[in-house]
Amino acid sequence: MHPSTPATTETPRTSTRTRARTMRAVVKASAGPGVEIQDVPVPTCGPGQLLLKVKRAGVCGTDLHIHRWDRWSQGRIRPPVTLGHEFVGEIMERGEGVTEFQVGERVSCESHIVCNHCIACRTGNGHVCENTRILGVDVNGGFAEYVAVPAVNAWRAPANIPIEVAAVMEPLGNAVHTAFSGAISGCNLAVTGCGPIGLFAIGVARAAGAARVIASDVSPYRLELAREMKADVVVDASRGDFVERCQELTEGAGLDGVLEMSGNPSAVRDGLAALRSGGRLSFLGLPTEPFDLDWNRLVIFKGITIHGIIGRRMYETWYQMHNLLSSGRLDIRPAITHVMPMEKIDEAIALLGAGKAGKVVLVPWGEEA
Amino acid sequence: MHPSTPATTETPRTSTRTRARTMRAVVKASAGPGVEIQDVPVPTCGPGQLLLKVKRAGVCGTDLHIHRWDRWSQGRIRPPVTLGHEFVGEIMERGEGVTEFQVGERVSCESHIVCNHCIACRTGNGHVCENTRILGVDVNGGFAEYVAVPAVNAWRAPANIPIEVAAVMEPLGNAVHTAFSGAISGCNLAVTGCGPIGLFAIGVARAAGAARVIASDVSPYRLELAREMKADVVVDASRGDFVERCQELTEGAGLDGVLEMSGNPSAVRDGLAALRSGGRLSFLGLPTEPFDLDWNRLVIFKGITIHGIIGRRMYETWYQMHNLLSSGRLDIRPAITHVMPMEKIDEAIALLGAGKAGKVVLVPWGEEA
Amino acid sequence: MHPSTPATTETPRTSTRTRARTMRAVVKASAGPGVEIQDVPVPTCGPGQLLLKVKRAGVCGTDLHIHRWDRWSQGRIRPPVTLGHEFVGEIMERGEGVTEFQVGERVSCESHIVCNHCIACRTGNGHVCENTRILGVDVNGGFAEYVAVPAVNAWRAPANIPIEVAAVMEPLGNAVHTAFSGAISGCNLAVTGCGPIGLFAIGVARAAGAARVIASDVSPYRLELAREMKADVVVDASRGDFVERCQELTEGAGLDGVLEMSGNPSAVRDGLAALRSGGRLSFLGLPTEPFDLDWNRLVIFKGITIHGIIGRRMYETWYQMHNLLSSGRLDIRPAITHVMPMEKIDEAIALLGAGKAGKVVLVPWGEEA
Amino acid sequence: MHPSTPATTETPRTSTRTRARTMRAVVKASAGPGVEIQDVPVPTCGPGQLLLKVKRAGVCGTDLHIHRWDRWSQGRIRPPVTLGHEFVGEIMERGEGVTEFQVGERVSCESHIVCNHCIACRTGNGHVCENTRILGVDVNGGFAEYVAVPAVNAWRAPANIPIEVAAVMEPLGNAVHTAFSGAISGCNLAVTGCGPIGLFAIGVARAAGAARVIASDVSPYRLELAREMKADVVVDASRGDFVERCQELTEGAGLDGVLEMSGNPSAVRDGLAALRSGGRLSFLGLPTEPFDLDWNRLVIFKGITIHGIIGRRMYETWYQMHNLLSSGRLDIRPAITHVMPMEKIDEAIALLGAGKAGKVVLVPWGEEA
Repeated sequence: MHPSTPATTETPRTSTRTRARTMRAVVKASAGPGVEIQDVPVPTCGPGQLLLKVKRAGVCGTDLHIHRWDRWSQGRIRPPVTLGHEFVGEIMERGEGVTEFQVGERVSCESHIVCNHCIACRTGNGHVCENTRILGVDVNGGFAEYVAVPAVNAWRAPANIPIEVAAVMEPLGNAVHTAFSGAISGCNLAVTGCGPIGLFAIGVARAAGAARVIASDVSPYRLELAREMKADVVVDASRGDFVERCQELTEGAGLDGVLEMSGNPSAVRDGLAALRSGGRLSFLGLPTEPFDLDWNRLVIFKGITIHGIIGRRMYETWYQMHNLLSSGRLDIRPAITHVMPMEKIDEAIALLGAGKAGKVVLVPWGEEA
Repeated sequence: MHPSTPATTETPRTSTRTRARTMRAVVKASAGPGVEIQDVPVPTCGPGQLLLKVKRAGVCGTDLHIHRWDRWSQGRIRPPVTLGHEFVGEIMERGEGVTEFQVGERVSCESHIVCNHCIACRTGNGHVCENTRILGVDVNGGFAEYVAVPAVNAWRAPANIPIEVAAVMEPLGNAVHTAFSGAISGCNLAVTGCGPIGLFAIGVARAAGAARVIASDVSPYRLELAREMKADVVVDASRGDFVERCQELTEGAGLDGVLEMSGNPSAVRDGLAALRSGGRLSFLGLPTEPFDLDWNRLVIFKGITIHGIIGRRMYETWYQMHNLLSSGRLDIRPAITHVMPMEKIDEAIALLGAGKAGKVVLVPWGEEA
Repeated sequence: MHPSTPATTETPRTSTRTRARTMRAVVKASAGPGVEIQDVPVPTCGPGQLLLKVKRAGVCGTDLHIHRWDRWSQGRIRPPVTLGHEFVGEIMERGEGVTEFQVGERVSCESHIVCNHCIACRTGNGHVCENTRILGVDVNGGFAEYVAVPAVNAWRAPANIPIEVAAVMEPLGNAVHTAFSGAISGCNLAVTGCGPIGLFAIGVARAAGAARVIASDVSPYRLELAREMKADVVVDASRGDFVERCQELTEGAGLDGVLEMSGNPSAVRDGLAALRSGGRLSFLGLPTEPFDLDWNRLVIFKGITIHGIIGRRMYETWYQMHNLLSSGRLDIRPAITHVMPMEKIDEAIALLGAGKAGKVVLVPWGEEA
Repeated sequence: MHPSTPATTETPRTSTRTRARTMRAVVKASAGPGVEIQDVPVPTCGPGQLLLKVKRAGVCGTDLHIHRWDRWSQGRIRPPVTLGHEFVGEIMERGEGVTEFQVGERVSCESHIVCNHCIACRTGNGHVCENTRILGVDVNGGFAEYVAVPAVNAWRAPANIPIEVAAVMEPLGNAVHTAFSGAISGCNLAVTGCGPIGLFAIGVARAAGAARVIASDVSPYRLELAREMKADVVVDASRGDFVERCQELTEGAGLDGVLEMSGNPSAVRDGLAALRSGGRLSFLGLPTEPFDLDWNRLVIFKGITIHGIIGRRMYETWYQMHNLLSSGRLDIRPAITHVMPMEKIDEAIALLGAGKAGKVVLVPWGEEA
């Protein structure tokens, strides 16, 4: 046994708090729209796993898709499954072989459970593992009182951040991954699309040393949130002057990078047009369908780099995010617009669907807001 | 004056060979199809320039476009202009201030004359300078007995390479730039499109340490040339099994990189589909019009990087190319299929247009083949 | 359960070959010089592990240190321990939860067992994990008939390589890691120190696309092996003209990189002096004691980068090595100078100590050479 | 002529302000200690040059060495030469061929005049050009009323920064280059040595997105300035607990990077010891003599990267610096402790020698402070 690891016999593997056998959970119970709140068994804590008491959970656009039972959901989800892939919890129990965490610690979680043996995993690209299973999508997630997760997916949340922030480190990590896929320091960057991840990206880009951050969207509500996240300039993309505004703000140089969060074809094309030669567009927003580019003018003649972005680098992104949060450089609270009981999941989904929310955080049964 | 620089007074600035006042040249004389062979004045050698006696010149697809007077040419070319942007010459004269070259040296030339003060130039991206002027396109080029070039654009050709190879270092540099824009060593790479630059790229990828090089095209003539350039596998793209063949050859892993030389939408889509997660597509081939991608499936979910490639890094690409050639690792002679008198420019253009040639090299008047 | 994973119930977890309860092994039995050949229990195959029948094993300089019981060994080794950290084996048994390998497959092994939770592991630097345990050093290794290893440490050896080569992928990986820590393609590189890893590095640098590889050592025996590994130039470092030779070979440009395999202060200083401005020295050879540099002249004024190198990137290095070997680009057989029965471990150690061997490979009891 | 360039005939090449034929200048007049203030001819503005009216100039440690006539100066300086390599000026005259600047613009200057044809220059490493000549060292510099500089060395200073800041962009660029030679965003960095460049580096690291910046020095005066530059933690290196303090501040993780500005052997060793595995030390401080390292423990076993740093990347560093300054993210004013008439150069040198100053800025004759 390795001497520097704390001996497991001396540390309790289980919380002394009595734990129920069943729990409340938000379940996709059957193929079709909607979700149900059900009593389900508390998960068991297998080898290498942690059992968490969920403290807070974030609602994601993906949850909206699953709720609506769109085409993607129909192909991917196998009901019944407990939803929720953004959450923070307290460790109640450690499975066999887990020594690096202690019962009682507060951890946030990477949602991608990866295989560790495909070529992607073996070459430092676990975030695009061919065999990825996602918590709350492919296996039971965190919209529940308890959740079991692989210990390797847990990240000790910084002690100094609010629990609502710790709850949404997973989507915040998307923003960090996107920003960190190219140069940030001293760069003029744009964030196109100010949904929750876009809003987070504004804060990340600023905290990570961008010279200027320009945010664009078409929704006045979201543009106001972008201002609260301290974007240097906020552009209403519906006015059609995004490229000109970027030129002005950069003394004619053009942008060094675009963090694309909308999936909107016009935003992508405008973003590419606003880049300086040699710039990068990091593309996280999912387009609803294929779209074309004038490759010559927008990509090849300018020597542009396009990065396809998904998930979070495992776990460089978490380390970078941890430092930004624990140092106090990054504050994403303005982007968290609603905190509500998990019981009100339908209301949360409706807010999201109506574009009337930034990030919505849910409080499980028995937790106090 | 800097002590390590040879004193200019001791070195002749001009060749002792008598030089004519006029010369033969291939000129785009007026707006419209075709070119003319004319007697024109020998260029003068301005400050910072070199006057070269052209020894050999390569014909490029761009010359074909200019010959045909296509839409791009109509917007760009201002006749009269001497064509030719790929060439090697002997230094006949050095302009004021040039000390780093000697009369009599054999130099190949970068065709992009850049401004050195735009943001691209100032950030190490001179190859995408906003103010680029191209020899043989915007200023008089090398389809002539003599050509004047900025000394900074000249590169001493390796002593051990044939003059026909030295003539085409400019397009070879496109291939080097494309290959070197991502990882090569130990990688499984595909080259999609086996025109001259694609053929060069096969040789470059092999010499630069790719594990395997797969070449694809639809032309049997070009596929045969790809074999002669020692591609490990040659795939007829018209058969529709490119992705499967790549999977097989890589033990199911997928490609690490694609060097896209065709501009063909299917080749791009197949290339992206054949990449492993985390791979890169370096995109040099110019599409004839905008085309769409299924971004989610081909780029975002796989974490792909797309590089737009143009020109050559100035001058890292030349240094890398020099080493590959001077060490003997890279031999591109199989891709040079024709050497003919410059007088026969129309015949050369016709061969290219018919897809019956790899790289065609021209021998100026007075030079012996 | 994940659908794309083969169901474990259909695949045998254990070889049908009868297996003994005890086995022969080379054991560091007690604190002090020498090793013993003993009958010890066959290891059990725990969860997540593989039990291998060892087919071949390589002898490393570290084994020499342990045999001699030098100061490092005295501080690190806790007898009794079975030695051997370079080996290839056939899978006899799969532990619980292992589905990605099949019984009967031939695997080579990473020797570093890492914690996966320290900052190094979490930021893609598992090779410098703070909690590393090494097979054959900290836990029982492969100088035995059988060895148990974590499945994640196993790498399916390319089918087309000789078993002796598969046996030494671990030290070959050191060479790959060193070479791949900077640019290789089109570069002029030197390998300083031609012990087994240096010899491997010559082959790796060539296969991975170096323009020229210069090898240096002081031993005529090793210099001859360097020639057999196809170094472009072989320099006797005792002659004192290493820097001049490098200048000559690079047309005065200087080296792009040095792969330092000797740990010798003069070799390091000469290597730095021979680098061009902006070059890199990748430093794997372990100096026997601290030594000084003229930092200003050798590092700072030239803008040099020095990389400290240990282990192998987990598992990018293995992927790169796999491709180089499976494609046939890399052949390290000239560096494997001896194959002998494992029983003759003392003789192998003596050969190494006398500098009369490249890599020595051992054949376990019951295996045929 | 290139159409996008403003026609030179329409723009005045010379200021209408009358200009004197002689000027005051700080001259190293002869081999030996000290400097003289002399009347010397105003420089002529050659082809490709700019003639500047100097507005402010910074005093550097190098000026102190030249003043003292130390061994380095004796080997390098060829009197008489006008000193001063940090300055900002107003363009009075443009030499032949210069179109990218206008008379009247305010420019700061890169001090390295490079050859553009050595391998370093040709591979994007002009900052380590083999043929570098330095303004104020090898050719006449800016401690004078006027100075002539190559136009390519001029950088339009951001309009919104104070003239004293514009004066010291050259040494600020050293700090930017050092910081930007590795990851900054979200990193825990230390700056070892709080002379002017170290002080600047604190500001740069913070503005460029470091999570935390730890500064160390032994001088209470400098540590106080480090606090004013907003270092998160300031460590008195004489107390011997630098490594422990770094561990504490990083929750035991260790530093991601060290910006070494002191050249002090203990600072380098402590910096390496405080790095996490896989971290980097960027080494700009010049040691006074060779010193040794325990390479195994401090560099190799930890997989550390050491970057030798000199000058500024030409001109990426200037672009990054420009953005940090023009966006208001970076404010270095606390590090500029003295502004005094150029006439008082001896006093400025004395302050520096006594360690009683951060950066000292000089006001030339005829300029108002």
